[in-house]
Amino acid sequence: MTAWEKRYATRARGMVASEIRELLKLLDQPDIISFAGGIPDPALFPVPAIESAHRRILSDPARAAVALQYSPSEGYRPLRQWIADYMTTLGAPCTGEQILITSGSQQALDFIAKLFIGAGDTVLVARPTYLGALQAMSAYEPVYAPLPRRGDNQRRSLPPSAGRFALAYVMPSFANPTGTSLDIADRAALLEATAALDVPVVEDAAYEALRYDGAPRPALIALDAARTGGIDEGHVLYCGTFSKTVVPGLRLGWVAAPLPVIRRLVLIKQASDLHTPTLSQMVMHEVVQEVLPAHVAPIRAAYRARRDAMLKALAAEMPAGVEWTKPEGGMFVWVTLPAHIDAAALLRRAISDARVAFVPGRAFHADGTGANTLRLSFSRADEAMIGEGIARLAALLRATSSNPP
Amino acid sequence: MTAWEKRYATRARGMVASEIRELLKLLDQPDIISFAGGIPDPALFPVPAIESAHRRILSDPARAAVALQYSPSEGYRPLRQWIADYMTTLGAPCTGEQILITSGSQQALDFIAKLFIGAGDTVLVARPTYLGALQAMSAYEPVYAPLPRRGDNQRRSLPPSAGRFALAYVMPSFANPTGTSLDIADRAALLEATAALDVPVVEDAAYEALRYDGAPRPALIALDAARTGGIDEGHVLYCGTFSKTVVPGLRLGWVAAPLPVIRRLVLIKQASDLHTPTLSQMVMHEVVQEVLPAHVAPIRAAYRARRDAMLKALAAEMPAGVEWTKPEGGMFVWVTLPAHIDAAALLRRAISDARVAFVPGRAFHADGTGANTLRLSFSRADEAMIGEGIARLAALLRATSSNPP
Repeated sequence: MTAWEKRYATRARGMVASEIRELLKLLDQPDIISFAGGIPDPALFPVPAIESAHRRILSDPARAAVALQYSPSEGYRPLRQWIADYMTTLGAPCTGEQILITSGSQQALDFIAKLFIGAGDTVLVARPTYLGALQAMSAYEPVYAPLPRRGDNQRRSLPPSAGRFALAYVMPSFANPTGTSLDIADRAALLEATAALDVPVVEDAAYEALRYDGAPRPALIALDAARTGGIDEGHVLYCGTFSKTVVPGLRLGWVAAPLPVIRRLVLIKQASDLHTPTLSQMVMHEVVQEVLPAHVAPIRAAYRARRDAMLKALAAEMPAGVEWTKPEGGMFVWVTLPAHIDAAALLRRAISDARVAFVPGRAFHADGTGANTLRLSFSRADEAMIGEGIARLAALLRATSSNPP
Repeated sequence: MTAWEKRYATRARGMVASEIRELLKLLDQPDIISFAGGIPDPALFPVPAIESAHRRILSDPARAAVALQYSPSEGYRPLRQWIADYMTTLGAPCTGEQILITSGSQQALDFIAKLFIGAGDTVLVARPTYLGALQAMSAYEPVYAPLPRRGDNQRRSLPPSAGRFALAYVMPSFANPTGTSLDIADRAALLEATAALDVPVVEDAAYEALRYDGAPRPALIALDAARTGGIDEGHVLYCGTFSKTVVPGLRLGWVAAPLPVIRRLVLIKQASDLHTPTLSQMVMHEVVQEVLPAHVAPIRAAYRARRDAMLKALAAEMPAGVEWTKPEGGMFVWVTLPAHIDAAALLRRAISDARVAFVPGRAFHADGTGANTLRLSFSRADEAMIGEGIARLAALLRATSSNPP
């Protein structure tokens, strides 16, 4: 332990996630086919709308002075109102006062964790679940237990040491990393179980707009508002983002939640970074009015074709004993390998020998299991590259099965 | 206590700072002369340079794709290098690897607090000190003790219960809220005392570039690097910002610190908001090359004239028993009233009767003292308004002395 390490308050607050960081660096190597990053295709960014919004705002002296000045921690009022109207169309009627603008929905997860999680509290998560949520929450030192599932006896399924329940975290639609969704009965059961435990539910809706087939399912916050009479009466904190439907680089997301929660989160936002950049909020407000919801159609069409290409290649190429999910939306297919194959070891050979990348699944498991799982993203590669990449990965798996590392 | 309040992990993490928030709202009332906000004058923003940088980047498809995409948590490499070169000119030679880009220096304070402060640890601060630093640090539940001063016997001056020393926080130049600076001997003594206590020093340099007269003084990180051989060998974490020299609304600041600290802060940044917006970092990199350091000269000239107007008005108008600082830079004058006058009560009358605003001083004191102090900012009002506002405040004080509230 170095002199600096002795000074840190906790190991968790500086937790290591080097695996993913190293993988992201691979994206710059042009001969690697990467299914690793869960990142949008920049060819789908509405650049002209973003460029012209910046120009309009910055060439108007009065608007430029507002755009470049300090601004309220809760966010730019017209954007909050636009989001409230959007939430209302989802079936969760609310006002701008029930919206906090955050620097991406990742920041919403951090602030919610900061408000609700004390060291040793129990957080309920799916296994596997979004790595970034585990990173955000682990800084506040919870223990993790499984999210209640339909038919569970929840108390029986929890560890006997489980203390105060701080939060339940769930991605009900096209989850990262599995691509799977909760059906309506699952959603109702989750709301009922968490209400019985008196634990707030964090609904991470990052991929919600990216549905490629099947009927839309109501957001948890909408179901809960219908059940209780309104989002202020419910127990769901909804985290949304513009990263998948517009662009991620402006770092704009939001929380829709009961007013008392929003008021506390605003104070946390103020103490943490004062506010999200004013200019990007003003730009986003102009851009969403101009391009949404129409702009989502070409995004859906592009990713649907890539999902189809990936599922087709997996079916054609993968050896027996390999299983995978068939997502109705999002960016990910989740692969389960035969139990004896370690995906982290496979990744090293995949990069050095096959020039194809993915994310090993263990990092998405709060309990350290999942060594034989991996996540494939189909968002960045075109259909031909997807076919080629899956063929390379399947060939490596066939070689690995006959010649284990 | 409401049902929601019972669910929060700590009261501190949602601490109330409503006083300042309410004050900021007053800035919109045109007949109030506000000395409250410590915010820059937007007339001094380099809007054309910012507008043209946005246009250049967004009209180039390859650069736009990078600007609007996810990017590394540590920040945009060319901007990190520019900052490293700037730090080197300050006498603290470093590389881009020793720089983390943050969403304003407020975020740097939050992340440093998150890494170093455990509940019950001792943080050393000046009294008064920057309210935003107290807000950021208080989320992690430290106790506060006075920053060592030259000639102190530090151990003796600390409360007997003081536990582990987590951090010392200091604004050595033109501090918020006092406007005062440490001289070179004070700086050397602070470094020596904190090194002896083995406590890292957070140097908040927010106002450093805004010197109006007197000779420049070396940054703590530069003195420490000279003493120890380099910033990696030292114990200073330097927080810088573009908010005062360019614009605050893009929310861009940085930490310069020993490499092991930066590596941990990068992981905290990743877990908290992934990264600072890519586009604003690219824009700032172009803007600083175009406008700095030349653009600081007109900013200094404007604020120097306002400081002079405020000091002149205070000398001409204030009744006996009122004292104030004479800052060589920054944005603030700190006023000490006769002991029997409560500045928070005075503010209510100042707003309702005199239509002039300031920030009462108690919020800047970690120990709840300072009721008879207040902060005046001279950054936003022109000289005539400053003269008028101080005259109104002085008249109110004369009336208050003869007729206490």
